[in-house]
Amino acid sequence: MSRKSKGINAERELIHLFWNHGWACIRVAGSGASRYPTPDIVAGNKNRVLAIECKASKGQYQYLENEEIGNLRRFSELFGAEAWVGVRFNNADWQFFRIEDLGRTKSNYVVTRETRGTSFEILLTQTTM
Amino acid sequence: MSRKSKGINAERELIHLFWNHGWACIRVAGSGASRYPTPDIVAGNKNRVLAIECKASKGQYQYLENEEIGNLRRFSELFGAEAWVGVRFNNADWQFFRIEDLGRTKSNYVVTRETRGTSFEILLTQTTM
Repeated sequence: MSRKSKGINAERELIHLFWNHGWACIRVAGSGASRYPTPDIVAGNKNRVLAIECKASKGQYQYLENEEIGNLRRFSELFGAEAWVGVRFNNADWQFFRIEDLGRTKSNYVVTRETRGTSFEILLTQTTM
Repeated sequence: MSRKSKGINAERELIHLFWNHGWACIRVAGSGASRYPTPDIVAGNKNRVLAIECKASKGQYQYLENEEIGNLRRFSELFGAEAWVGVRFNNADWQFFRIEDLGRTKSNYVVTRETRGTSFEILLTQTTM
């Protein structure tokens, strides 16, 4: 499976999770290729809106570029959404991170397989920020 | 230009309009083909979220199926968005309609070229509903 298909499959899986938990959730068309700063998926439940950049990783590290994170931040501020990064390492559950909780490298952001994030269930029960 | 390309071009045009007016706006991937009830585009500006079903028409009438409107209504209720239908007839500006303002046929909804809707500028200045 190509890296792109793998990413889209992971996004679809997450979208099903949201709908199955009573949230409305959409995948953004052309995210990554858009001229505008857009996240991969957007979910809402009347009280909260989550903008999520999604990554599926088969390694130990998942890097995120400054531009991706900058776009996530800009979209979320303008739209009025909470900004989250969702990472699913192989054979592990989704974990979610606020931008300020991501690790930094010299020039990028990083999540390691061992980093403890917020689980999907806990993500849904956060109070509005 | 195919009917589908025409529709997507119209959606893109509307998305540019939102960004140019300081809103964040995304096109929904696979809307119409999704197993979930999703609109064509979603726009937000911190205070409001609009879910919009978009139509570009070269005729005098634009019909909308019960299912499309039902999906728009369901998504909007679950997400917490205002539900709008946007129609652009050839050589005319975008007009926006609330579901309750659409015309009815025996089995569908309809907007005619002469129906007066809400302009894009007025849409942006509505107070939260």
